[in-house]
Amino acid sequence: MPRISESTVRRLSHYYRVLEEVAAEGKRMISSRRLAEREGITSAQVRKDLSYFGSFGRRGLGYSVPHLREEIGAILGLDRRWRVAVVGAGNIGSALLAYGGFARQGFDVVAVFDQDARRIGQRAGELEVLDIGRLAETAAEMSIEVGVIATPARSAQAVADALVAAGVRGILNFAPRKLFVPDDVALRSVDMTMEFESLSFALTQARAPRRRRTPRDTA
Amino acid sequence: MPRISESTVRRLSHYYRVLEEVAAEGKRMISSRRLAEREGITSAQVRKDLSYFGSFGRRGLGYSVPHLREEIGAILGLDRRWRVAVVGAGNIGSALLAYGGFARQGFDVVAVFDQDARRIGQRAGELEVLDIGRLAETAAEMSIEVGVIATPARSAQAVADALVAAGVRGILNFAPRKLFVPDDVALRSVDMTMEFESLSFALTQARAPRRRRTPRDTA
Repeated sequence: MPRISESTVRRLSHYYRVLEEVAAEGKRMISSRRLAEREGITSAQVRKDLSYFGSFGRRGLGYSVPHLREEIGAILGLDRRWRVAVVGAGNIGSALLAYGGFARQGFDVVAVFDQDARRIGQRAGELEVLDIGRLAETAAEMSIEVGVIATPARSAQAVADALVAAGVRGILNFAPRKLFVPDDVALRSVDMTMEFESLSFALTQARAPRRRRTPRDTA
Repeated sequence: MPRISESTVRRLSHYYRVLEEVAAEGKRMISSRRLAEREGITSAQVRKDLSYFGSFGRRGLGYSVPHLREEIGAILGLDRRWRVAVVGAGNIGSALLAYGGFARQGFDVVAVFDQDARRIGQRAGELEVLDIGRLAETAAEMSIEVGVIATPARSAQAVADALVAAGVRGILNFAPRKLFVPDDVALRSVDMTMEFESLSFALTQARAPRRRRTPRDTA
């Protein structure tokens, strides 16, 4: 298999989502045009992406939905599960545990850590909050593969270092701080603070208020 | 003021966060080197960014922390508040309401909408879930400026269209779908599904397991 760029992975994610929708509608075949829809991708790009993975549509029929879904799911690693520790049981950590999206994506949260004595021993969802000092031993015992960082920005790098030392292979960072990890550890970040500030900036720059359509306008 | 690129806004966000940290430590002055730290930004870039906004450090002393913080806060629009409607009271919407980070960033959630009859009339945090059919009238009555989309992917574009028609000036999208809005509406997206899939992909590709350091190794 060729080396796959981050932008190809994002397109595969998109195809996978369209395939899930189409499968839910009960369809068995899908065209490259439908797979390309709404993302500004060309049909030619879809065919090229899929040919890399040995999947070829049939002229006039398109691609088999269940086959392509299984294939892309396997490439994205969605056919297996990952054992996850969440570090930080504050606002973000609690919201993430309540959100439930982890499990749907194959990430099973099996441990939650915090450094705050007031939180240690409390319940977070179905788990008990553990002392961050027990991270290394717990990670080994529980075969934890992925760490989710939901701490304030100032602790995030130290937590990342501890997770790397504890042997995790991937980190999902929700703290608003750029993190540094070894090359063999996968790192992805969701920086909501930055998105908020970027939106706030755009709203502030746009001087003229938008004309609001009141119900009267449309009547 | 010159036209500011998205990457400059992201650097300003970073400077603002460092300034908050340094202010919490009680410091009054900060160097361009400290502002550049940890993001791979050069001191020269910091000085260039800040000179655009008329802020100049003093050689050997640096920048005034409270002054620079106020100035960057004003550029990012963090000195004012936005009235927000959340659309979608399911998993993501509920987690966002519980998270509490909106208010800290100047975004006050004043209404929550859903289309599901089982959710309408229920409480979500301190708000009552309203029928999405009342979006236009409520947005006008409550002067809603920003919409947060927390619906499934398949409804997200229709909700975006309804928010635009209702006169919002900005949209924060949490649904895993690319959205299209007019040029005068600011759109930012947080696609957690894609980050999960990208992480899962990276973990799957990395074949060799990392060597786990057990407590014994470090003893």
